[in-house]
Amino acid sequence: MRHKMNTITDLLRRHRSVRAYSDKTVSDELLDDLISAVQQSPSSINAQQTSLVVVRNTNTRKRISEIAGGQPWIAEAPVFITVIMDFYKTSLAGQKKGLQQKIHESLESTVVGSVDAGIILGNLITAAESLGLGIVPIGGIRNDPAEMIELLQLPPLTFPVAGLCLGYERGESYVKPRLPVSSFRHDEVYKTNGLQKTIEEYDQTLMAHWKEVGRNNGEPWSDTVAGFYQRIYFPKVKPVLARQGFLNDK
Amino acid sequence: MRHKMNTITDLLRRHRSVRAYSDKTVSDELLDDLISAVQQSPSSINAQQTSLVVVRNTNTRKRISEIAGGQPWIAEAPVFITVIMDFYKTSLAGQKKGLQQKIHESLESTVVGSVDAGIILGNLITAAESLGLGIVPIGGIRNDPAEMIELLQLPPLTFPVAGLCLGYERGESYVKPRLPVSSFRHDEVYKTNGLQKTIEEYDQTLMAHWKEVGRNNGEPWSDTVAGFYQRIYFPKVKPVLARQGFLNDK
Repeated sequence: MRHKMNTITDLLRRHRSVRAYSDKTVSDELLDDLISAVQQSPSSINAQQTSLVVVRNTNTRKRISEIAGGQPWIAEAPVFITVIMDFYKTSLAGQKKGLQQKIHESLESTVVGSVDAGIILGNLITAAESLGLGIVPIGGIRNDPAEMIELLQLPPLTFPVAGLCLGYERGESYVKPRLPVSSFRHDEVYKTNGLQKTIEEYDQTLMAHWKEVGRNNGEPWSDTVAGFYQRIYFPKVKPVLARQGFLNDK
Repeated sequence: MRHKMNTITDLLRRHRSVRAYSDKTVSDELLDDLISAVQQSPSSINAQQTSLVVVRNTNTRKRISEIAGGQPWIAEAPVFITVIMDFYKTSLAGQKKGLQQKIHESLESTVVGSVDAGIILGNLITAAESLGLGIVPIGGIRNDPAEMIELLQLPPLTFPVAGLCLGYERGESYVKPRLPVSSFRHDEVYKTNGLQKTIEEYDQTLMAHWKEVGRNNGEPWSDTVAGFYQRIYFPKVKPVLARQGFLNDK
């Protein structure tokens, strides 16, 4: 029995990051459809601890492109959506019931809030691509989360987790190969055997890909990841989470 | 100009959690298509710091249903996927390059790892539903992450972030209404004005929904959220993250 592939798995397979945008605007109707659909994503205990801030304003996007460490595509794409971990809204439920919210003091809230923000972000990405938009997710806003909080006027008990550029592609971008699936999918238990070999293999696959798409400064995966992860980048995440009211369990 | 809705935003709008499964198996072909497609999801710096453990074994699923605090649908659904935050794989890149990985010591890694796990989970959910499967995401595995780590033989620098039941629905489930979109989508800046009112409104919407679907013990949203969030649940998340090698920046 042959399983028939469908359009959504095909769409996921074609995902690529877009970093050059035309000046075509994104219609309000499309954005309304996208956001109202994505809001139906599941959340832990249906707490809906995620909010979006949709930015079209040019100056705000320019400022965000600086905050994110200089990413010009944020200023170029007509829409930027920040995905907010939001325990402010849930705290209002407590206020209504006369019960003090405690969950935000625990690291569990940062984990569940980040996962739920990721679910929303994943569905935003896939739905946006299905509507013909190009996107690139932006973790760089965590470079200076305090500036993002001020810019977007975020209340306490919220945190700007990640962002997303949306617009219509200018030029061309490419689907980047992934690590061998055996390093991603484990059956029944996690198997560490053979992982080094899949990394060797992927380093070569990725170099062949860079050559194919004419990118001369492309590195093996190991070089990029080892380079970034030998240091603690985005060191402001922890103190700003604490300032927003999170992580205060001793 | 009228924007035409497409099948993916329609699909997202029909999302519902399924907690009763038939004994129909999920084919290997379908699972292969699903997982290989979802692997193309974007990740921060293309580090691909997520792995999946796919469990079909009946005894393992029974054990997970207990770990998650007694959730019988985990034992009933033929497939359970655990989404793993994985900085073990990335540490091998460092080993290859002779560079010590530091990122896992920072809270940033827990945030980015959880967001990336959420992106994968969101795309797993949407793609699975598009293939005719019913699903329910499971945060309850964080009730006892150390037991999950032992059961799935997870190495250091990994953490079981969330799970997902997959199978074919038995009976019927319903699309649950969400908070008014004005509490989810903010334009240009976050607006706290009116949030209390949207919660009042939603409490009534949800009670009407419970009545409509014949659920007699349904509560207003405020009651559920305030009840859960007045306490620190899943208190083992932080110590087990630390034991796995995370969060050691002083």
